[in-house]
Amino acid sequence: MLHIPAMAAAQEADLMGKIVSLCKRRGFVFQSSEIYGGLRSAYDYGPMGAELKRNLMSEWWRAMVHSREDVVGLDASIIMHPEVWRSSGHLAGFSDPLVDCKVCGERFRADKAPRKEAGEDAPITLADKGRAKAAAERIAALTGETLERQKATLRGAKAGDRGYVCPNCGSPFMSEERQFNLMFRTTLGPVDPIGDIVGVVRQAIEGGADDRELRSTVESALADASVYLRPETAQAMFVNFLNVQQSLSMKVPFGIAQMGKSFRNEVTVEHFIFRSCEFEQMECEYFVRPGEGPASLEYWKEQRMAWWESIGLKAENLRLRAHASDELAHYSDGCFDVEYRFPWGWDELEGIASRTDYDLNAHSKGSGKKLQYFDADATDPETGKKGWRYLPHVIEPAAGATRGVLAVLCDAYDEEPADAEGKGARTVLRLHPRLAPIKAAILPLVKKDGMPEVGRSIAKRFFEAGINAKYDEQHSIGRRYARHDEIGTPYCLTVDTQTLSDDTVTIRYRDDRRQERIPVDKAVDVVLAALRG
Amino acid sequence: MLHIPAMAAAQEADLMGKIVSLCKRRGFVFQSSEIYGGLRSAYDYGPMGAELKRNLMSEWWRAMVHSREDVVGLDASIIMHPEVWRSSGHLAGFSDPLVDCKVCGERFRADKAPRKEAGEDAPITLADKGRAKAAAERIAALTGETLERQKATLRGAKAGDRGYVCPNCGSPFMSEERQFNLMFRTTLGPVDPIGDIVGVVRQAIEGGADDRELRSTVESALADASVYLRPETAQAMFVNFLNVQQSLSMKVPFGIAQMGKSFRNEVTVEHFIFRSCEFEQMECEYFVRPGEGPASLEYWKEQRMAWWESIGLKAENLRLRAHASDELAHYSDGCFDVEYRFPWGWDELEGIASRTDYDLNAHSKGSGKKLQYFDADATDPETGKKGWRYLPHVIEPAAGATRGVLAVLCDAYDEEPADAEGKGARTVLRLHPRLAPIKAAILPLVKKDGMPEVGRSIAKRFFEAGINAKYDEQHSIGRRYARHDEIGTPYCLTVDTQTLSDDTVTIRYRDDRRQERIPVDKAVDVVLAALRG
Repeated sequence: MLHIPAMAAAQEADLMGKIVSLCKRRGFVFQSSEIYGGLRSAYDYGPMGAELKRNLMSEWWRAMVHSREDVVGLDASIIMHPEVWRSSGHLAGFSDPLVDCKVCGERFRADKAPRKEAGEDAPITLADKGRAKAAAERIAALTGETLERQKATLRGAKAGDRGYVCPNCGSPFMSEERQFNLMFRTTLGPVDPIGDIVGVVRQAIEGGADDRELRSTVESALADASVYLRPETAQAMFVNFLNVQQSLSMKVPFGIAQMGKSFRNEVTVEHFIFRSCEFEQMECEYFVRPGEGPASLEYWKEQRMAWWESIGLKAENLRLRAHASDELAHYSDGCFDVEYRFPWGWDELEGIASRTDYDLNAHSKGSGKKLQYFDADATDPETGKKGWRYLPHVIEPAAGATRGVLAVLCDAYDEEPADAEGKGARTVLRLHPRLAPIKAAILPLVKKDGMPEVGRSIAKRFFEAGINAKYDEQHSIGRRYARHDEIGTPYCLTVDTQTLSDDTVTIRYRDDRRQERIPVDKAVDVVLAALRG
Repeated sequence: MLHIPAMAAAQEADLMGKIVSLCKRRGFVFQSSEIYGGLRSAYDYGPMGAELKRNLMSEWWRAMVHSREDVVGLDASIIMHPEVWRSSGHLAGFSDPLVDCKVCGERFRADKAPRKEAGEDAPITLADKGRAKAAAERIAALTGETLERQKATLRGAKAGDRGYVCPNCGSPFMSEERQFNLMFRTTLGPVDPIGDIVGVVRQAIEGGADDRELRSTVESALADASVYLRPETAQAMFVNFLNVQQSLSMKVPFGIAQMGKSFRNEVTVEHFIFRSCEFEQMECEYFVRPGEGPASLEYWKEQRMAWWESIGLKAENLRLRAHASDELAHYSDGCFDVEYRFPWGWDELEGIASRTDYDLNAHSKGSGKKLQYFDADATDPETGKKGWRYLPHVIEPAAGATRGVLAVLCDAYDEEPADAEGKGARTVLRLHPRLAPIKAAILPLVKKDGMPEVGRSIAKRFFEAGINAKYDEQHSIGRRYARHDEIGTPYCLTVDTQTLSDDTVTIRYRDDRRQERIPVDKAVDVVLAALRG
C-alpha cells in the first residue's frame, strides 16, 4: 500500500479512486447493471475479481476446514424459515431508526443525523430561494410558525427534544421515527401477497382505520407470507448444530464453518465494496464446553490474526481492537475486531465474539427442540460424575470476504516511480501468489515461428497441474508485462527464439522485475513451490 | 447406480428414499431449518454435501475457465437492476398461470391440472361427508346449481371451457387465471413499500375502486420500489459483455462463465434437490460471429457431454435430446438437453442453446447502449472489406449444479450384497476421486501407542499438498471403513504397529476393498496421481 500514515485526506481519496479505476480497467470489479445506470451498492466481480475472491475464500476454507480435524463445512440456503429470525432476534431488533424530513423530504437514519441540543437554533437551508419560500409556507401550514427567510435559508426554528436535525436541510420538523428492518423480505410459494391483502385493506378502511392502524393491518397480513434473505450466515450453523454433530459424530470442541452471500438493506452504503447490500461472509461457529469460552476466544484471536498475515496483509496494517463493555451485546462476554488500516482509517475486517450459549438457547426455545450435547468425557459439575449434558458455548470468528478482497487490493496496490531517465514507472499489485488471479502468464515473444504452439503447450502443463495460467499473445511484450503487473500475476514466462532451440524460457518476477532463464521443465515446479511455500 | 432399466416404480422410489436417507445420515443434505419444521423446497448442504458440491463446481470452473484461453469468469450480484428483467422478458413472461379452486381452496397451476373436455362430468370429492355438505351449499350459493351428494362426493357438475378441473377435489368452479411471476420480489434501499402504498390504497378505495382496480393500483405502486432475485445467472453475462470484452481485450469467439445461486418461486417442487426454489447454476455464454452459431452448438454439445462423463457419470446414463421445433424459443435456432437417467426417468441436467443475437439485442434496446463488437479480422459481408461491426451470436451451455450433485449421487450409489456367509454387505458411493468430499482417511488402528501422532503427521502432509484428507480415530476400524465407503472416500490409510517400525501403511481401495502395504512417503503421491489422472 502507499504510505498511509503520512497521507492527507485528498491522497487517501486518491488511492481509493485509483483502486476503483484499476478494478474496472482490469476486470476486477464492475458496478452492477452498469449499462442500466448501475444499481445502488451492488457490484459484479469481473474475470480477475472473481478469481481473486475465489482464491481468498478458498484459502479461508483450506485453513478453517481442510487443515483442521475439528471444523467441518456447511452450505445452507439463503432463504431460511422465518422463525429462525424470530428466535435469533433479527425480526424484532435488526433495524435502523428511519425518519422523513417534512421540509425537504429527505429520508435518513436518526442515529446518524447531526446532533443538536433541544432549543438550539436550527437554521434550515434549501437549494435555492424558490424552494426556501415554498418550504416556509409548508412549515407555516404545518406548525403555525413563521420563519424568517434570508435567500435560501430560513431562521427561527429550534431543535426539538430528539437531539438531531435533518442532515440535508437542517430542519427539526420530522415524521415519527420508525424501525426499518435491514432484512430483505420476499414471499415463498404460490402465495399472492397483494391479492391476499386487498380484501383486508378494504375491510380496515371501511371500518374507519387510520393510516397507522392500516399500516399495522397490512404488516400483519404480509407477515404470514414473508420469508427473508439471510442477513448473516451464522444462524444456519446453530440451526444445523445437531444435524452436523450427529451425522459426523463430532465431539465438543468442534466448529462449523460456512462461506457465502448475505444481504442487508443498508441505509448507508460506503467505501466501494466495503459496505454493500449484497456481500459475502466467512463465518465459523466454534462450540466449546461451558466455561471454556474465554480461553477459546484467546486462541481464535491469534489464529485469525495469523491467517490474515499468512495471505499477505502487512502486519502494520492489522490490529486487534477489544470491544468496550458498552459495545458488547448483553449475552457476550468478550469480543474483538480484527481491523485493517483502510485508506479512510482503521475499520473492521472480522469480528471474533464469545457468544456464550445465547444462540443455541434462543433456537432451543424458539423451536422447542433440545439442542443439548452429551459430553461423555466431561464431569458434570452438579453431580460430580462423568457424563455432562449441556448447551455448548460459542466462539464466532466472523470475517467479511467482500471487505477482505478490498483489504487485499489496498495492501497489494503499489506505484513505482520512473527512473532518472523517466522510464519504468508502473502500477503493480503485490498479491500473495495464492491470491493472484493468474499464477503464471505464458507469453510468446512474437505470434509466429512456432512460439504460440510452444507457449500453449507450456500453458497446458500448468492446467494439468491444476494451476491457473494464461497464454497471452496480444500486444507488445512490454505492454503484456505492464498488464500482468497490474493484475498481480507473479510470474511471466516468455517464449523466444532460444526456447525453440534449448527448451528454456525467461521467467520474470513481478515484484522486482528480475529476469532469469530457466528450463521449461522447471516452470511448473517454480510456481508450485511459491504456491505451497 | 442400481440397475435402473429393470427397476419397477417401487424400486425407483426406494432408491430415491435410500439416497435421501444417506444424505441426511452422512451429512450430505439436510432439509433447511429442519428444527423449525423445515422450509418448503430448501436444502442445506452438510459437511459432506458442501464439499461434494464445491468439488463439482470447481471441476466445471477448471474445465470451462482455467483450462481454456477463450473463456473468462464472472461473479455478478444476485440482485440486479430491475430493468435487466424487463429487457430480458422475465418481468412480462417468466410466469405460471395460477388458479384458486372456489370449492376446496386449492391453489394450482392451470397448465398442470387434470384435463377434461368441456361438458364432461366433473365429480367433486371432498375429504369427508361434512365437508361435502358444506361444499354443496357453497356451490349452490355461488352458482345456483344443486349438486347430488353421495357420501363425500358431489355429482352433476360439468367441466367448463377451460379444459381442466381442480387437482385436489375435481371441481370445475375456479377463480380466474392470473399470471404468477416466478421471480422473488423484494425492495432495495430505505424505501417503505407498505407505508408508501397505504395512502395510494386509501385513495383508490375512497374513489370507488373495485378489487381488480385496487390490485393493479397496489401492483404499480410497488413496482417502482421492486427489485428481483435473479432467476438465472445468464443475464449478467450479457449485461457485462462490453465490460468484460474491453477490460480483457477478448476477441470473438470468446465466452463468459459464471456459477452461483439463482432463485425461482416454483409452484411445483419435486425430486428432492432436483427442482427447488433456491438452486445453483453453472452457465457459460459463448459469443461467436453471426453465422457461426450452428457449428459452435455442435462443438459445445460434444464438449459438455464429454465433461459429464469425465467427472464419472456413466455413459449409458447420459444422452443428448434435440428440442423439437415447437419446443424452441422463437429466437433460438437450435437447442439440446443433456439428460441424465434419474430414478424417475430421463430428465434435464443441462441445456445447450443457440440463442442468436436475441439477448444482446434486447439489452442493447433496453439500455440504449451499443453492445456491438468490432471484429478487425473479419470481412464485413455488406462492404466486402476487412473490419466488421456486429452483435455477436450466442451459444449457451447452461448446467444445473444442484441437479448435477443429485445425478452424481444417483450414479455413484451402489449396494453390494453379503457373501455366502452373510457378511460384507455394504453401501458404497463410487464417486470420482476429484468429487469425493474426503480424498483420503487416515485411520490409526487404535487410539494409543503413538498411532494417533503418526496418523496426524500423515494427515498434515496431505493438508500441505492441498488435499482434503481427514484423520479419523472414532469407532472400530470396520465401522470406519463402512463410514468412508458411504461418503465415497476413495482411499483409507491405516496406521498400525508395523507403521511404527517400518514407515508403511495399509492402503485400502474403496471400490474393491483391496488392501496393500505402501510406504508412508508414497501415500500423498498415490492420491495425487488419482486426482490428476
